[in-house]
Amino acid sequence: MRTRPLKVALLGCGVVGSEVARIMTTHADDLAARIGAPVELAGVAVRRPDRVREGVDPALVTTDAAALARREDIDVVIEVIGGIEPARKLITSAFEHGASVVTANKALLAEDGPTLHEAAEKHGNDLYYEAAVAAAIPLVRPLRESLAGDKVNRILGIVNGTTNFILDRMDSTGAGYGEALDEATALGYAEADPTADVEGFDAAAKAAILAGIAFHTRVRLDDVHREGLTEITAADIASAKRMGCTVKLLAICERAADGRSVTARVHPAMIPLSHPLANVREAYNAVFVESDAAGQLMFYGPGAGGAPTASAVLGDLVAACRNKLNGSRGPGESAYAQLPVSPMGEVVTRYHISLDVADKPGVLAQVATTFAEHGVSIDTVRQQGKDGDAWLVVVTHSAPDAALSSTVEALRGLDTVRGVASIMRVEGE
Amino acid sequence: MRTRPLKVALLGCGVVGSEVARIMTTHADDLAARIGAPVELAGVAVRRPDRVREGVDPALVTTDAAALARREDIDVVIEVIGGIEPARKLITSAFEHGASVVTANKALLAEDGPTLHEAAEKHGNDLYYEAAVAAAIPLVRPLRESLAGDKVNRILGIVNGTTNFILDRMDSTGAGYGEALDEATALGYAEADPTADVEGFDAAAKAAILAGIAFHTRVRLDDVHREGLTEITAADIASAKRMGCTVKLLAICERAADGRSVTARVHPAMIPLSHPLANVREAYNAVFVESDAAGQLMFYGPGAGGAPTASAVLGDLVAACRNKLNGSRGPGESAYAQLPVSPMGEVVTRYHISLDVADKPGVLAQVATTFAEHGVSIDTVRQQGKDGDAWLVVVTHSAPDAALSSTVEALRGLDTVRGVASIMRVEGE
Repeated sequence: MRTRPLKVALLGCGVVGSEVARIMTTHADDLAARIGAPVELAGVAVRRPDRVREGVDPALVTTDAAALARREDIDVVIEVIGGIEPARKLITSAFEHGASVVTANKALLAEDGPTLHEAAEKHGNDLYYEAAVAAAIPLVRPLRESLAGDKVNRILGIVNGTTNFILDRMDSTGAGYGEALDEATALGYAEADPTADVEGFDAAAKAAILAGIAFHTRVRLDDVHREGLTEITAADIASAKRMGCTVKLLAICERAADGRSVTARVHPAMIPLSHPLANVREAYNAVFVESDAAGQLMFYGPGAGGAPTASAVLGDLVAACRNKLNGSRGPGESAYAQLPVSPMGEVVTRYHISLDVADKPGVLAQVATTFAEHGVSIDTVRQQGKDGDAWLVVVTHSAPDAALSSTVEALRGLDTVRGVASIMRVEGE
Repeated sequence: MRTRPLKVALLGCGVVGSEVARIMTTHADDLAARIGAPVELAGVAVRRPDRVREGVDPALVTTDAAALARREDIDVVIEVIGGIEPARKLITSAFEHGASVVTANKALLAEDGPTLHEAAEKHGNDLYYEAAVAAAIPLVRPLRESLAGDKVNRILGIVNGTTNFILDRMDSTGAGYGEALDEATALGYAEADPTADVEGFDAAAKAAILAGIAFHTRVRLDDVHREGLTEITAADIASAKRMGCTVKLLAICERAADGRSVTARVHPAMIPLSHPLANVREAYNAVFVESDAAGQLMFYGPGAGGAPTASAVLGDLVAACRNKLNGSRGPGESAYAQLPVSPMGEVVTRYHISLDVADKPGVLAQVATTFAEHGVSIDTVRQQGKDGDAWLVVVTHSAPDAALSSTVEALRGLDTVRGVASIMRVEGE
């Protein structure tokens, strides 16, 4: 074993960074044995240098992240600051100065992954980012490497723990969205500003990353259709239950049937209780991957948290260090397929629609005609009502999303339809 | 991209090999783009050259596997013959002649993995074997690489599809073992001689491989405690149901609490219906991995079959080819921990025991005393009986397996115990 250590710079020492530093110290012997050389934490960039960080040598702490990232003696830079800047500048600077990079930065990868990959390529370094998607659940490496000889057709997953916790609570207790969010916040599952989670930005970034790797093409955050769960009501959840379903916020990446385009989207959807994703409780994540040869695979585990994210970072660190030691490189970006990303309107899906209608004869006929006029075929329809209040609950067959949404618009314009109480897509069948 | 192709030799062209050959042809462009050079099937060794193999150029077919494995122009040898010899000689010969090897051979890896790893190391080549465990489910790469910075403590999995199919049928239809086996055979899930599956040899080989990778130590097939499922009766399954459990054939690899030894075992066990493994139906596989930092991960998918196994082989082929192209190597054997494998007697587990007892006062006291004398604490006991027939169903707390089995021996010797109707371990709580 080589005795001269590989040097690691840690940018950021929050929940994830401090776990990384801790494990690098407590598991130093194991890491050295697995890499073939010791690894040494050579610097830790933080914003607040005065905060006490257990297990981190104060002499290593600096507020000058830029200087640390460009130190020529650093072999691997770990970026766990998050956000677009200064993370992007720091990462590209690290590559320019000869380091490989391990990052957990899903926002930056989804926003501008190509810039990072190109910088890594240009300077002959590695870019690893397992921690950017679903924390410790191995997804990036299995997609990049294990399935590199297969053809992935579809990814369907729960990739945001906060929203899964909220929906699980709404489902199990009957709580409304606000109440469930309050509980998630109190328990530390939701941040003070939950926008990134509840509006689906976090899940959309992960969908962009997964779609890009799976389909060997570039998919950016802007390419991902995104709907959050802030408008999900207790009534929606109850309605799903009557259908034998539950509601999950899903990230769905699909290759078109003709193979010439792909789609990526994040939105709430009803899934049958019999589907394995229906049983993913609390803040857990789970991702289905469907491919030509492997068939249907599922990966399940904790999708967030300091220790699980650190596990993924450290797995990548071992790989990056081994490569440095051997003068080799891991797989780079694979985007040769250059497939266009189709808009949401072209995605084929199914709708569950609840209509508040006038309780008089002919309403169903009028509604059914509207569906037919838009080329949308009805799977089931259920009528409920008494004392002048009436409801129609319609589940469609598969149709392009554009046809479904224009059907809904037309329904809103009917005299006999007082309102569209709920619209939700149905997946997982 | 390099235009000179990498050359691949395929040893074996059965269910898996023919899928590998097919996908190498149909997905040639994708494989080339992902590797950075075309891959060419340069030879296919078979036993019966006259059999028609769709999509395989007859000019490539040879019966001389040894000559093919030592061809100096071959970059990667794929071994899907199985068994110990001639596979071992062919693989070591391939390494000696400069090729990397991708194999699906679980029996050989569990029997003599070190010989293969040492030959790969000596000649600077790669040995990849994702397909040896649970076909397309990425397990070997996640354990070798994704979790390389973590400390794995436990693996609990269903790694044999044939036995899971049999147990699933017994559970869902009430069939006996023989009847369920017949159905598995008729449907192609069981081979004509089902010994390797139903006696647990196949699962034990996989347990040895997984334990070795997970704990960074050498674990051989002989180190794995093995019990098959041929003695499981419909009554055992019914008894499990009354406990809110189902019966699964589990592979369990554990690090001892003090970290100084490991254990690996395969046996049937009751698991609660609420456990995710309880819902793994038909011939599917699923594996739980528990580690310090990542927590609990689960991997699920088809654990056998031509296409899923080929998917794993091709993922490894892409990795081996990339490394050849870059003059680099993937991770080698990691067995530095050199942990002893403890015998089954030291494994801490729980027993579910059904006793046929005399229906008279004092029986329970006598039985309870026997447990206490062996240091085994009882969790629950249920008495059933009428008309002179009586049953005691005892579930113990955790205890070393040796203490549990000597308790059972002592129970057999009691006057009041007519027989031990069923013993099964309880896991997954």
